[in-house]
Amino acid sequence: MADQNANSISVQKWAEIFAAALEKQDAASASALFAEAGAWRDVLAFTWTIKTFEGRNDINDLLVAKLADTEPRNWTVEAEPDAYEGWLHFQTRFGSCKGYVRLQNGQALTLFTALQDLHGHEAPIGKRRASGLYDDDDTRNWLDRRQEEQASLGQDQQPYVLVVGGGQGGLALAARLKVNGIPTLIVDRHDRSGDQWRSRYKSLTLHDPVWYDHMPYIPFPENWPIYTPKDKLGDFLEAYAKIMDLNIWNGTEFTAASYDDAQKNWNVTVERDGEPMNLRPTHIVMAVGNAGFPRKPDFQGASDFVGEQYHSSEYTSGEEFFGKRVVVIGANNSAHDICADLVSHGVKPTMIQRSSTLVLRGSTNSKMARPLYSEEAVEQGLTTERADFLNASMPMRMSEQLQKQIWAQVAESDADFYASLTKAGFKLDFGEDGTGLFMKYLRTASGYYIDVGAAAMVADGRIALKSGVGVDRLTETSLIMGDGSEIPADVIIYATGFGSMEQWVERLISPEVADKIGPCWGYGSGTAGDPGPWEGEIRNMWKPTAQAGLWFHGGNLQQSRFYSRYLALQLKARFENLNITG
Amino acid sequence: MADQNANSISVQKWAEIFAAALEKQDAASASALFAEAGAWRDVLAFTWTIKTFEGRNDINDLLVAKLADTEPRNWTVEAEPDAYEGWLHFQTRFGSCKGYVRLQNGQALTLFTALQDLHGHEAPIGKRRASGLYDDDDTRNWLDRRQEEQASLGQDQQPYVLVVGGGQGGLALAARLKVNGIPTLIVDRHDRSGDQWRSRYKSLTLHDPVWYDHMPYIPFPENWPIYTPKDKLGDFLEAYAKIMDLNIWNGTEFTAASYDDAQKNWNVTVERDGEPMNLRPTHIVMAVGNAGFPRKPDFQGASDFVGEQYHSSEYTSGEEFFGKRVVVIGANNSAHDICADLVSHGVKPTMIQRSSTLVLRGSTNSKMARPLYSEEAVEQGLTTERADFLNASMPMRMSEQLQKQIWAQVAESDADFYASLTKAGFKLDFGEDGTGLFMKYLRTASGYYIDVGAAAMVADGRIALKSGVGVDRLTETSLIMGDGSEIPADVIIYATGFGSMEQWVERLISPEVADKIGPCWGYGSGTAGDPGPWEGEIRNMWKPTAQAGLWFHGGNLQQSRFYSRYLALQLKARFENLNITG
Repeated sequence: MADQNANSISVQKWAEIFAAALEKQDAASASALFAEAGAWRDVLAFTWTIKTFEGRNDINDLLVAKLADTEPRNWTVEAEPDAYEGWLHFQTRFGSCKGYVRLQNGQALTLFTALQDLHGHEAPIGKRRASGLYDDDDTRNWLDRRQEEQASLGQDQQPYVLVVGGGQGGLALAARLKVNGIPTLIVDRHDRSGDQWRSRYKSLTLHDPVWYDHMPYIPFPENWPIYTPKDKLGDFLEAYAKIMDLNIWNGTEFTAASYDDAQKNWNVTVERDGEPMNLRPTHIVMAVGNAGFPRKPDFQGASDFVGEQYHSSEYTSGEEFFGKRVVVIGANNSAHDICADLVSHGVKPTMIQRSSTLVLRGSTNSKMARPLYSEEAVEQGLTTERADFLNASMPMRMSEQLQKQIWAQVAESDADFYASLTKAGFKLDFGEDGTGLFMKYLRTASGYYIDVGAAAMVADGRIALKSGVGVDRLTETSLIMGDGSEIPADVIIYATGFGSMEQWVERLISPEVADKIGPCWGYGSGTAGDPGPWEGEIRNMWKPTAQAGLWFHGGNLQQSRFYSRYLALQLKARFENLNITG
Repeated sequence: MADQNANSISVQKWAEIFAAALEKQDAASASALFAEAGAWRDVLAFTWTIKTFEGRNDINDLLVAKLADTEPRNWTVEAEPDAYEGWLHFQTRFGSCKGYVRLQNGQALTLFTALQDLHGHEAPIGKRRASGLYDDDDTRNWLDRRQEEQASLGQDQQPYVLVVGGGQGGLALAARLKVNGIPTLIVDRHDRSGDQWRSRYKSLTLHDPVWYDHMPYIPFPENWPIYTPKDKLGDFLEAYAKIMDLNIWNGTEFTAASYDDAQKNWNVTVERDGEPMNLRPTHIVMAVGNAGFPRKPDFQGASDFVGEQYHSSEYTSGEEFFGKRVVVIGANNSAHDICADLVSHGVKPTMIQRSSTLVLRGSTNSKMARPLYSEEAVEQGLTTERADFLNASMPMRMSEQLQKQIWAQVAESDADFYASLTKAGFKLDFGEDGTGLFMKYLRTASGYYIDVGAAAMVADGRIALKSGVGVDRLTETSLIMGDGSEIPADVIIYATGFGSMEQWVERLISPEVADKIGPCWGYGSGTAGDPGPWEGEIRNMWKPTAQAGLWFHGGNLQQSRFYSRYLALQLKARFENLNITG
């Protein structure tokens, strides 16, 4: 961007003019400081939601609507003297905020702003941490108090927030809420924290590198492996819950909930160790994973098939399938992982690829993450928190453009890798508009494989491939394909994904509430599985929904870490009865 | 020091000349670069032990003895251009090293050097961490391998290192050894990791602030309280052991050990859940705490006393003593904590102070730690690792001098506080030579109280004080004091400390080995409880002892953290059969 900025103003100067315009409540002047195609992404600092404003008109409307109530002030800049991008720090009426701005020809191409702390309710961390000593003439020590909290929450004392699901998302959020002093209870159907991961297929590891995956407050230690094995992650999460003093009811099913408009809280039924119990939280956060129930195609003849049929979520290890003819339907992450696991157990599986797939080499994935999430980034002093902030600072439309460029480079640099797959008959794509894996993830969270070994097995035939054709029907002992070919099988594994997240709401709360809220995930890209209108932000995630007191939290470990902070701030503002205008 | 250094050379220049002299194996020139009263403290970089060399002669002797074998080279300096103190980085034949030097009039007043990593055996952390994926055609996943390790260690596979004691010291060391790939087993008599702390008296918290107390690899999260409550610490340590994949046999007593000179390993007997088992570790590390067994005075008439008598280690809470007359013998940390706990339970205890005590306000203690261990230090970018290094860089004799100055200031700044204690009859000291708390800790680990509330109770009489007089004898219902006075009592609590660490060796190994090793702890200051000769380093701790294969590890959390690194390096060098010259 250096050339484009020749003879232009610096971040320091831009921020000065911008701050002065805001000070004067001059929306027109302030919005004129943005490029025509500029965008402003805000997380709670101006809007009390997560929203991107595109173009000067929308930005002007935002300022007209919010300036008086927000009162932004005390702007300072953290940037090299002549830099065209840099960090902003400022205050609003509600709290302290941070920003990141990128200039082009003296105008803001992107501005990202986010609330960091609420005035008078700053998180008690760092200098504000508790002493650990009690000055209240109460002889109960820490353990007494902790045990009483655990015994009373959900019984004598109702949780302000009920978090449904204690995976990484629920734990990260509950930790943020705990630190912020909000009575929070997690309910989770598993017997132990971490079982969400332990119960998955045996060869599973995280596909993102460790630097991307840290939990809030307790980063993985520096000897942690790059790709975390599932059981190790499970153990870490269990220890995490303990260290952060989280309140969790394990072995507990969330079975029903209805919102009490008069009381402004929820009437929730859970089954704790099989016993029905009533809870009255003010807020419910669904943190059940960003997918719904296992999805299986309903093939003609499926009931005639005499062999075994499993959904990928039921698969644990290839051990039991030695000597059997196994067909895996699907060609995304879990299909590949399961096929690789079968190969390592001496099975030659057949993978049925019904439509094209995006494949990304694990090493290329790590390379793409490197500027923000890597040992190099750490060495250059880029903390995880700052990396997350930079990562969030790029508005969705520009992300799409940037990703298109990046993936054109990937196609080139990994050409041999892709050629080997194409040669084996594998159907590849980089997304229908070439925007690649991460946009696919944000649109439908499906359609890709991050390669940790299976691609070579497809290329060299250890995994047999049947591609570009669907299953027509099953017989007693085989699959008949759309092209008339027959694939004999003893075992069929459906790696065919999961339904959408709103299924949970429909089933656990009501179809009416599910309707009111609309779809979760996706950002209205107008591509297959993610119809418009354009939203520019993930639908319903980490921000207020159309149902009072109902929130959604989830995503990968990076998203959980980053957005848990902002969801916690929203709940804290409500817990403290701040007069916020949503 | 700025004035003293006027017209003098910078660290950069000094290091250049020093490096050149070492390069030429010119011990005389190199030692001439030290001040007459200069000292060089070395941890493994030149000596394969922990040793301070005082004065040019000793430094010259060190260099004459070690230069040829060590081959120090590739010196670089990390310091401001004109600085008179700064960081050094260099290599030896064995590994990479770090140093810190302070100049005065162009000569080194202090030099601290320490080995950081062994060439070819660098710890697999950061960039060197494992991938988490297995490329060994072995279908066992992480959990399978972990379970097999736990099942076989001590059974099919002998631990290279047996760590006796799984408190913070044993865990920190075992974590370092685990990261370094050394088969290590901890045996501990408690049922759960952390019980070492959970089993202590109810009101106990750490007396040092959180920034001083971090464990290696997993720092406490930023919401952690300043003074960690004992049960919270216990839970953290238990989670720590889990996250770091440590191998621990809980409920296991170490009962006997003898060194096999032919096999060069130990013949150890432990009782695991009551079952005797044999172990053959190459090394034993005693990490049983830097004290021996509970020490109780043997008062005349003690068996006539009809009330209850407890050692402080048996005390849990004042709850059970309500309405009773409780006498606490002793005036150090645990005596004060126990008295405060009794007061908070409505008891008015009598504290018997037999000799003077050093008292330090908790807030002053935190203030003294502030330059190295505080939120301010963290904000200034001083990592815990660098703080530890700086902390270790001051040779013992200079520490004594510095501490004397610091404590003169403490006496002045906290004069009112001390006057209130004196007024109550409390006998104060700052160490017999005025060097204060930390030197007392290094000499005898006794004789002080870091105030977290009890001092005010002594001052205002909530804790009754009998000072400056010993106990003559006990009657059925009272203590008769040396001055003839009588103190009626229902309960006597002996807060009279613990025996010396070498008692463990005598009892668990043999009196012969205990004799051979000599005393542990203390540095030969020539003060009461720590007779000379001057050693200038803590005796027998974290370094080779006179008994092959026997090591001592322990100290407070800061020492455990710091020295575990160097003890692990020493064991790693032996594990890899490096040709080291001890």
